Amino acid sequence: MSVVTTDVAHVMASYHAATAEVITRYLAEREPGPHLYDPVRSFMARPAKGIRPALCLAACEAFGGSLDEAVRTAAAVELLHAAFLIHDDIEDGSLRRRGEPTLHVQHGVPIALNAGDALAVICLRPLLDNVAVLGSRLARSVLTEFQLTLETTVEGQAIELGWRLDDVAELTPVDYLDMILRKTCAYTAILPLRVGALIGSRGSADLDAISQFGFALGAAFQIRDDVLDLRSDASNGNDLMGDIREGKRTLMLIHFLRHAHPADRARVAAFLQRSPESCTSDEAAAIFDAIGAAGSVAYAEEYAASLLEHAERGFDDAFARCAPSAALTFLHDVIGFVTQRAR
Amino acid sequence: MSVVTTDVAHVMASYHAATAEVITRYLAEREPGPHLYDPVRSFMARPAKGIRPALCLAACEAFGGSLDEAVRTAAAVELLHAAFLIHDDIEDGSLRRRGEPTLHVQHGVPIALNAGDALAVICLRPLLDNVAVLGSRLARSVLTEFQLTLETTVEGQAIELGWRLDDVAELTPVDYLDMILRKTCAYTAILPLRVGALIGSRGSADLDAISQFGFALGAAFQIRDDVLDLRSDASNGNDLMGDIREGKRTLMLIHFLRHAHPADRARVAAFLQRSPESCTSDEAAAIFDAIGAAGSVAYAEEYAASLLEHAERGFDDAFARCAPSAALTFLHDVIGFVTQRAR
Repeated sequence: MSVVTTDVAHVMASYHAATAEVITRYLAEREPGPHLYDPVRSFMARPAKGIRPALCLAACEAFGGSLDEAVRTAAAVELLHAAFLIHDDIEDGSLRRRGEPTLHVQHGVPIALNAGDALAVICLRPLLDNVAVLGSRLARSVLTEFQLTLETTVEGQAIELGWRLDDVAELTPVDYLDMILRKTCAYTAILPLRVGALIGSRGSADLDAISQFGFALGAAFQIRDDVLDLRSDASNGNDLMGDIREGKRTLMLIHFLRHAHPADRARVAAFLQRSPESCTSDEAAAIFDAIGAAGSVAYAEEYAASLLEHAERGFDDAFARCAPSAALTFLHDVIGFVTQRAR
Repeated sequence: MSVVTTDVAHVMASYHAATAEVITRYLAEREPGPHLYDPVRSFMARPAKGIRPALCLAACEAFGGSLDEAVRTAAAVELLHAAFLIHDDIEDGSLRRRGEPTLHVQHGVPIALNAGDALAVICLRPLLDNVAVLGSRLARSVLTEFQLTLETTVEGQAIELGWRLDDVAELTPVDYLDMILRKTCAYTAILPLRVGALIGSRGSADLDAISQFGFALGAAFQIRDDVLDLRSDASNGNDLMGDIREGKRTLMLIHFLRHAHPADRARVAAFLQRSPESCTSDEAAAIFDAIGAAGSVAYAEEYAASLLEHAERGFDDAFARCAPSAALTFLHDVIGFVTQRAR
């Protein structure tokens, strides 16, 4: 099992490097440096897994396209992701991101907000440049996929922000899945896979089957991310249990609030209403113990495992017509990677 | 003179109404309402002058196009403007906008930031829909104009934010013109005029001449806006002297800091470093008197007047090939309207 993981990580890193090169080109020699492109370039240089561009590039190759045909689109996916991270971190009051303080902690909210806007705007540039490589019709299909996904993402973000602002306690796993489908899966897995497949197949791939696969994969990825956040220590570079401090309604928290003893529930509910800054590490650790004792972490891990089984079945439908290739093997092995990754 | 102004305002209102109808259609029946589209729709329903869509629609008609061909693009211009206003108000800590509290004052920064993102994202929808009306090539040219303008705008915003963060005092009128060219003129006047002309002329208009006209018009508009802000009372719906409270480097302030008595300058400089909330109306009024006494308001008004002369000359170049029409008359009379408008 660990051999597979190493290979996936290796291939992912090489897809990510190809994408980073394109991004560097799009960000080069832009002015002004201070207060805009210096923070933007330094944020983009932080270490990242690069799962999104990898899904896009592998899907393109699996459907017979070349890396060069999809690499601008992969760059757009990663630029968009960075834009969302920066704005989300402001909205969530997050403190750390990719091993460093969040951009608004480093530079203040105005500069960070505007830097996020810049990344979202620059992400359109490679999508327009696609016309020369992919032709007008295919480039437009890709752009339309981005536009619709962007709408879905801001809608998912509004739903999650609303839960926290309204201090919503009565949520079900279905509510959670619906929210992360919009907020995370759409742009993390479904969009990159769809646009990659669109490009590789010259518009003929079965995008519905790819969306199904992307949803299961993306949802498992997000739940795994939440579990890792809960178990986080300084090594993963993000906030220590940032989700709990920020009151995020993760699947674990939703399970806990439905099944814990009333006294434990009341304690956690009180904790959720406090500001992230006011929560000590000891308090967060106590919450972690309570959530673990209620079986909520085990529940989330089983939930992610069943989503990955779903992804495994969906894989065959999504890529039925693809001939064997290294890219196809990567897309399959990513399913296992989601469970095994440690950060 | 006042008759002309009334006509311009009347025509502008009718262009704005046609645009608002399209915007309403693009925002209709979207979910979720709470925390996203309800605030977005209510913001878009606030009273606005609508100069940007009017410039776009009139330029299209002046070059022989129809209102219907450009109205989606005009809607995109206005959606984009709203997105910028909402994000700028967060970045500037502004309190009032279009007669009501700013969106982040009403709903908090997270919801307002995300609502701004939503408007920027939805603005792409009519631009993609343009393909069916304008054809693929022309629709792409329009989209490229938007993309480049968006980059310019975030760059201008970074420059202005930098001035305030670094507490820059040594600025010249040329610095100011360069900043507003990027931050304001580009999307307020140049973009709407260029895309309107592109559509109306089917891509054959002289866009350089139109940019020249748009820059002079847009810069005069912005300086006039700053003068009105300085003279503002409750009736214009924005912050009472919000620019001064926020420390904005307006042309008047730049002139003042270069020409005032050292004692006056020190007093204003100290005021600029305080938070907007800590400044009383009496203090702001005293600053206003000092700026007026230094001749800085008169200087700005003369500067705007010379820009409008420049716009007047540029008008002939920009629209040389256009036959007389109501739209062309409107575009000409807008020059006078900029000086005469009281809000």
